[in-house]
Amino acid sequence: MIVDTLAVVGTGLIGGSFALALKQAGAVREVLGVGRNPARLALARELGVIDRAADWAEAAQADCVLLALPVGETEAALKQLLPHLKPGAVVTDAGSTKAEVVAAARAVLGARSADFVPGHPIAGSERSGPGAARADLYHGKRVVLTPLAETRADAAATVRALWEAAGAEVETLDAAQHDRIFAAVSHLPHLAAFALVDDLAQRADRDTFFRFAASGFRDFTRIAGSSPDMWRDIALANREALLAELDAYVDALQTLRAAVDARDGQALHTIFSRAREARENWLKQQDS
Amino acid sequence: MIVDTLAVVGTGLIGGSFALALKQAGAVREVLGVGRNPARLALARELGVIDRAADWAEAAQADCVLLALPVGETEAALKQLLPHLKPGAVVTDAGSTKAEVVAAARAVLGARSADFVPGHPIAGSERSGPGAARADLYHGKRVVLTPLAETRADAAATVRALWEAAGAEVETLDAAQHDRIFAAVSHLPHLAAFALVDDLAQRADRDTFFRFAASGFRDFTRIAGSSPDMWRDIALANREALLAELDAYVDALQTLRAAVDARDGQALHTIFSRAREARENWLKQQDS
Repeated sequence: MIVDTLAVVGTGLIGGSFALALKQAGAVREVLGVGRNPARLALARELGVIDRAADWAEAAQADCVLLALPVGETEAALKQLLPHLKPGAVVTDAGSTKAEVVAAARAVLGARSADFVPGHPIAGSERSGPGAARADLYHGKRVVLTPLAETRADAAATVRALWEAAGAEVETLDAAQHDRIFAAVSHLPHLAAFALVDDLAQRADRDTFFRFAASGFRDFTRIAGSSPDMWRDIALANREALLAELDAYVDALQTLRAAVDARDGQALHTIFSRAREARENWLKQQDS
Repeated sequence: MIVDTLAVVGTGLIGGSFALALKQAGAVREVLGVGRNPARLALARELGVIDRAADWAEAAQADCVLLALPVGETEAALKQLLPHLKPGAVVTDAGSTKAEVVAAARAVLGARSADFVPGHPIAGSERSGPGAARADLYHGKRVVLTPLAETRADAAATVRALWEAAGAEVETLDAAQHDRIFAAVSHLPHLAAFALVDDLAQRADRDTFFRFAASGFRDFTRIAGSSPDMWRDIALANREALLAELDAYVDALQTLRAAVDARDGQALHTIFSRAREARENWLKQQDS
């Protein structure tokens, strides 16, 4: 047992899978669930994702509280918890951006920000809701923690131990560095996929195009099936790093465009080869 | 039996799978293979992809010749075939662009362009070579034919029958329309994936980025594992339509950028929702 009681705010794929994994590992005795939607909470309970629904005051009495919400809702959630927060309770989150979450924690929690451990599990799916939760979602996946300077070492150690009990590999990064990295490898690709599909979706003759789209298109655009609420929040929360990545990407596309325009086959071949090789090296490292 | 002898120029994934499928279907008696690389031809023969290697003169005596080559090599291949081309032989290709192939056929074949049936199987994989060939590659896949005005009806019917015997669904499009559609749903996504990976690959600290790339990145960039030779040729052959799509895509990205910059969450949500819905509708149509 790592903690006696865990509260998950948001009992969908991310929070629900965390709860299921920890129950299965025997790392927690009781799981409380907080959420706005009673039907969803009832489903989470029915599926064994949580033991019982709770309000903010009850959740704040848990030993550990996980916020598994769109990042834009972090500040409001912390405000709800703070007045009731048990001494020594650890608060963590699962948001895809970290600098804004850190700022919200400092602004809302004051001295209690020492009990806050920002986190980001690198796992997900386009599926959502309690029904999508799986005990093995985090198996072999990375979780990045970005502790604040003032975060208590034992609070960080508790959150690390919970994620490890859920099967994840835990790493630590600075929040700003985290956000720069994920702007490039996750947030930009999501926006790029949304933009490509939307460009087609807005055409009067879109059906003709979609009719001939095949497996390459399906994989390229898979992430355009992700939650609009969640990705709106991420884009706004990681605005600066994302703007820099969007600019770099448009530059890269303009370089390709110039090569196509100039019929410069050699330049195209160089770019395509470099990209393919980099991706192959990456895949090899993933496997090892 | 639809034709007695088939010659495939290029015995890799596309040509080899066509040959295997037709042999398995009993649609062809003998398959000849043409290629520059003797080791590859020997492997194709060993794997039963072709019955024997042939030179251009022998291949031109087949009842049907399939060119399964990077599109930039179409013109040179037609020049090799023409002097030996058997009266009544049907020539087809599997190139991903069609207008330039049509122009090459008219320029090289003269009156014999009536025997040419341009084609494009919508199937593939990053894998290549005779070892990647599979008899079922085209099962349930679309093949687009773009016959010339002068193409003999019976030549087009033969090529259609062969693809149907290979398990494909055959459709007919105008070559220019084909190229506009595939610029949007295939060629642009490939360039977009290459550009994104290359942008990371050129950074001094690329390892830090790749280290945290996950499944969304893997799927988004899968097509950046494709052949640089093939995609250089496609980008050059479909230059005009591709330039128009690149411009439209950069516009779509700039629209997203402006919304992020202005912190316009509503605009982002609208775009993400429209894209997700369009993709979901597309997937439903694919399944039905």
